Amino acid sequence: MDALTLGPEGTYSHRAASAVADSVSFAESMTAIVDAVASGRHTRGVVPIENSIEGSVTESLDALAAGQVAVLEEVIVPIRHALIAQSEAFESVESHSQALGQSREYLDRHYPDVDRDPVASTARSVERAREDASIAAIAHPDNATDALQVLDTDIQDRDSNVTRFFVIGPSDDRRDAGSKSTFVVDPGVDHPGLLLELLEPFADRDINLTRLESRPSGRELGDYVFHVDVEAGLNEDRTRDALAEIEALASDGWVRHLGSYDTRRLDE
Amino acid sequence: MDALTLGPEGTYSHRAASAVADSVSFAESMTAIVDAVASGRHTRGVVPIENSIEGSVTESLDALAAGQVAVLEEVIVPIRHALIAQSEAFESVESHSQALGQSREYLDRHYPDVDRDPVASTARSVERAREDASIAAIAHPDNATDALQVLDTDIQDRDSNVTRFFVIGPSDDRRDAGSKSTFVVDPGVDHPGLLLELLEPFADRDINLTRLESRPSGRELGDYVFHVDVEAGLNEDRTRDALAEIEALASDGWVRHLGSYDTRRLDE
Repeated sequence: MDALTLGPEGTYSHRAASAVADSVSFAESMTAIVDAVASGRHTRGVVPIENSIEGSVTESLDALAAGQVAVLEEVIVPIRHALIAQSEAFESVESHSQALGQSREYLDRHYPDVDRDPVASTARSVERAREDASIAAIAHPDNATDALQVLDTDIQDRDSNVTRFFVIGPSDDRRDAGSKSTFVVDPGVDHPGLLLELLEPFADRDINLTRLESRPSGRELGDYVFHVDVEAGLNEDRTRDALAEIEALASDGWVRHLGSYDTRRLDE
Repeated sequence: MDALTLGPEGTYSHRAASAVADSVSFAESMTAIVDAVASGRHTRGVVPIENSIEGSVTESLDALAAGQVAVLEEVIVPIRHALIAQSEAFESVESHSQALGQSREYLDRHYPDVDRDPVASTARSVERAREDASIAAIAHPDNATDALQVLDTDIQDRDSNVTRFFVIGPSDDRRDAGSKSTFVVDPGVDHPGLLLELLEPFADRDINLTRLESRPSGRELGDYVFHVDVEAGLNEDRTRDALAEIEALASDGWVRHLGSYDTRRLDE
């Protein structure tokens, strides 16, 4: 099966997608990937959701909240950033803004006076470094082919740097069995204690909440849509009971079960 | 008093800072602003925290969690984006990534084939449009001086587009009185139901939680620092009691009261 992910070749998204699909195609944004799967133009997509240093990939969360897709699996990919250029004589460092952020301490220490410019992907920065000797890229060391050299490895600020990806498919493929489930909740109302009320149905049933992310609803400041990850499948009674309670609380809004799924961890 | 904020002249940060300070100086990043105030090089700073469409400004949150500063006031600024260029004959649109994101629907509809390139600030995009006829900027219409024209106004995707800023000062200026308070909590531990336990002390005392944002602790995936805003001042008994309970829960981590403060809303 083919999976659509963030290109070009050599991105961490490409590494994640290669682990779950026979072949990989590339799109230019998370929104484009979710749209292609929601509309049926592609059967599988792989989108980054969260990095252990930089936090949520908000474009992915917003696209998942808007799109009619299911989460089928999560993939945890270790991030190993290398500094890649034709030689040490570079004048600027380019990479995806998250990779620049993840290497901030390294760059501050070793290259405090070098300009940092965000580009669309880590792989795009490698292309730019290949074309232009004045540019260094930050990307996985496997990208240092042809005239490019790896100037330094493991330049990310912390060893525990991993990115979490979702494998997505059409809503019809949604599963109820899995060690984790993801819900998106738009309460449609706001009152004191609301957030607590939304979490209690899980806590009351000893369901571990592994992540809660608020995203703006777009209606007004202070009005949020919540992305909730729990360690339980929707095929368990306790999860269905909790969901029913949350649906009652959000009766003026909506609750979407994006899917129940298992985790795959890639080696370095 | 002089306030340091994100430059150059003409940014929305500049508009916010002008409302609270006699004069304004400019820095290049939120981290630089917080560092300058924490180290005493500047007595006041103004940093964007949250936009009603694009969500949190994560660099500001992370800098506040790391820095020794106090939040003295919040300022709500309406965002009115205009498309600004020398003429209609532009080939690319540049602006701060949040402004590009906030105008996505407009650009998709009217300029689907025009490249969009993120730059450091809305004001920087105006400088670029002034230098180069092939570039259009997205910024407040007041920036369209000299050869620049306002091609379209109110291009933001929603009318309710506002950005929330914090006015920051040295920790010694921290106040306990105000209609709102902000805390940063690193629990230092993780167990099922932890997040609920951190919210209950407020809910039990009818203190309205207006915002909860998780940011990665950097230690490992799934381990978070929480930014919590509540509608109560620390000079109230109920707030101090709630804080004491949260400090007990986070005894392996830390809790920081960034300050209690009031809200100022700017007109359009």
